[in-house]
Amino acid sequence: MAETRPEEVLVNFEELRVLEAEFDDAEVELVRKSEALYRPLWEKRAELIKKIPHFWTLVFEQAPPEFDNFVQPSDSKVFVDCLKSLDVSRFEIDDPKGSPRSFSIKFGFGDNEYFENKVLEKKFWFRKSKDWDGHVSEPVKINWKKGKDLTGGLTDAAYELAQARRKLAKTANGSAKSKETNLPEYKALAKKIEESTEASVSFFAWFGFVSSYRWISAEESEEASRARAERLEKIKRGEKVEEEEDDDEDEPDYQETEVFPQGDEVATLIAEEMWPSALKYFKYSHEADDDDLSELDVEDMDEDDSSDDEIDIRGLVGKGRKSSDSPPPKKQRKA
Amino acid sequence: MAETRPEEVLVNFEELRVLEAEFDDAEVELVRKSEALYRPLWEKRAELIKKIPHFWTLVFEQAPPEFDNFVQPSDSKVFVDCLKSLDVSRFEIDDPKGSPRSFSIKFGFGDNEYFENKVLEKKFWFRKSKDWDGHVSEPVKINWKKGKDLTGGLTDAAYELAQARRKLAKTANGSAKSKETNLPEYKALAKKIEESTEASVSFFAWFGFVSSYRWISAEESEEASRARAERLEKIKRGEKVEEEEDDDEDEPDYQETEVFPQGDEVATLIAEEMWPSALKYFKYSHEADDDDLSELDVEDMDEDDSSDDEIDIRGLVGKGRKSSDSPPPKKQRKA
Repeated sequence: MAETRPEEVLVNFEELRVLEAEFDDAEVELVRKSEALYRPLWEKRAELIKKIPHFWTLVFEQAPPEFDNFVQPSDSKVFVDCLKSLDVSRFEIDDPKGSPRSFSIKFGFGDNEYFENKVLEKKFWFRKSKDWDGHVSEPVKINWKKGKDLTGGLTDAAYELAQARRKLAKTANGSAKSKETNLPEYKALAKKIEESTEASVSFFAWFGFVSSYRWISAEESEEASRARAERLEKIKRGEKVEEEEDDDEDEPDYQETEVFPQGDEVATLIAEEMWPSALKYFKYSHEADDDDLSELDVEDMDEDDSSDDEIDIRGLVGKGRKSSDSPPPKKQRKA
Repeated sequence: MAETRPEEVLVNFEELRVLEAEFDDAEVELVRKSEALYRPLWEKRAELIKKIPHFWTLVFEQAPPEFDNFVQPSDSKVFVDCLKSLDVSRFEIDDPKGSPRSFSIKFGFGDNEYFENKVLEKKFWFRKSKDWDGHVSEPVKINWKKGKDLTGGLTDAAYELAQARRKLAKTANGSAKSKETNLPEYKALAKKIEESTEASVSFFAWFGFVSSYRWISAEESEEASRARAERLEKIKRGEKVEEEEDDDEDEPDYQETEVFPQGDEVATLIAEEMWPSALKYFKYSHEADDDDLSELDVEDMDEDDSSDDEIDIRGLVGKGRKSSDSPPPKKQRKA
C-alpha cells in the first residue's frame, strides 16, 4: 500500500480551503439571484396582505416549533394585540463593502400597552473575524411603558452597553476590545444576566441580541476579509501560508453579556423561513381553523382597528387548496 | 366600520393563489440558477475528495440529528464498512416534461457482507396530483446476501408491489388505482408492515420508499399540472372557477404499504443539506477528533482497501480553520 507523504496531505487540505471559499462566493451569488427573483413577489405579497387583517399574527401563530421555543405566552399576547406588519430586506445588497447576507427585520406595531415604538427594526450584519463569520447585531432601544418591560430591563441594559462600547471605540484606538469588560455597563449587564432568575426569557430580549460570538465592527470585518482573501491568493499561487495563531483564548467570554444567545438562529428562522414561507403558514392557519378551533380566537383580536378592510377570516376557511401534504419548505443548498 | 362584501374576500383569496403559483415558479427558477452555480463546484469537490478515504463515512457520522433518528447502529456499521461515494443530481433539469426539483441520490459501496449491489440509486420525482405535490420514488431492489437483510424483507416486498403496480397500470387503463389494493403484493406488504414488531426500522428500508401521499405517475402529474395551469389562467382572466371536489376521501390509505413514511424528508435532508454542506460536516468531524475522540475509530475502518490514496485522517486534524462558530446552514427562501 503506497503511503502518502505529509506534503501531499497538506496540499490536499489547502485545496479544500480554496474550494470552500468558492462555495462561499457561489452562495453569496445565489442570495443575489434569489433576491432579484423574489423581491417583486414580496412587494406584490405585501400589497395583497394589506387587505388581510392579522395576517402576520396568524403566520406567527403557525410558526415552526423551533421558533415557538423562544416565545412566551406574554409575548404571544403582544403579537395578537398589536403586530401589524413584518418586513425583511437585504439592506447591503448593493453596497460593495457590505454583504448580501446582511438583513434587516422590521416589525410594525399598533398602539399598545407595552411600548411606545411603532416600529422595531433589527439589523443583522454579516461580518467576519479572523476565524469566525456570521451575523452580528446592535441592541434596539424599546421604549417600554412603565411597569410593562417584558424583559425585566435586559433590552435597556444591552442598549446601554452598546452605546458605551461605541463611545469607547471612538476614544480608544484599536485596544477598545480589551477595555470593554471594564465598562460599568458591561459589569451591570453581566451581573443582570447572571442574577436573572427568570426561567424563560421574553422574545423581546431578542432585540438586545449582539452576537453568538462577539461584536465585530465593519472595520474589523473588512480587514479580516482582506487578510483571508490574501491568504487564499497565496494558496492558489502555491505559496506556503503560516497557520494563524489562535489568540482567542485570551479573550474574555463576551457571551456573559449576551441577553439572547441564540439570537442569530432566531433571526435566520424569521428571515429565511417564516418571511419567505408566510403564505404557507397563513394557509396552515386556515386548515387549523378548518379541522379544529384555532388556538387563537380571531374574533377577540384588535377590534378597535377601524380600517375598512375588515374581513371575516373564517370566511376564507375552506377556500384554500388542500396543502397540508405539501412538502416541507426546502433548505438552501450550500457547501 | 365598513364591511367587505364576500366577493371581495374571494377575489382576494384567488389573487393569493396566483401569487403562490408565481412563488412556485420563482423557486423552480432558483433551483436552476443554483444548479448552474454549484454544479462545477460539486464536480471539483468530487475530484478532491477522491483523495480522502472515508470522506462520506465521516460526513454521515456528523449528520444532523434529524437524520440520525433514521439510522440504526447496524446501518452505521454498513456506512463505516463500505460507503464509498455519494452523488446527488438533478436528472430532469433539462427535461421540459420533468422538474428541476426532481433529484437522484446515488450511493456507491465497496464489497461487503450485506448486499451484492455496488451502487444503490434512488430517484425522487417531483410530481403533482390535483391537490398535492411533492416527491415520489420507486422502490430500489437491494440484493441482500443470505440472512443479511437489515430490513427483514421490507425492501423486497416494496419492490414486488411496485412491479405488480406497474404491470397493472399497463393492462388496466385509468382505473388501475382502485385495483391496486386487490393485488396480493399489496396485501402482503400491508400485512408485513402491520405485523412488524421491529421498534426501529433500518435506514435501508428508505430504498423501498414510494410516497408520503401515494404513487403518482408521470402521466397523472402532467395532467394535474395542465389542469392547474388552466385554472390559474381562468383566475387571472377574472373568470369564475369551481372549487374542485375533494374525492380523496374515497381513496384507500396507501400509507399502509409505505415502508418508510418519512422517506421524502430523509431524501431532502440528504440532497439539500448533507450533500451541499458535506465539506462543513467533514470539517466538524476533524474538530470532533480534535476536542475529543471521534465516536468512530478511523483506524478500524476498511483496512483491506488497497487504494494508494490512504492518508492519515488524523494528520489533517487541526489544519482546519476553526469554524465551529459558523452560522448554521441557511434555509432557502420560499413562498
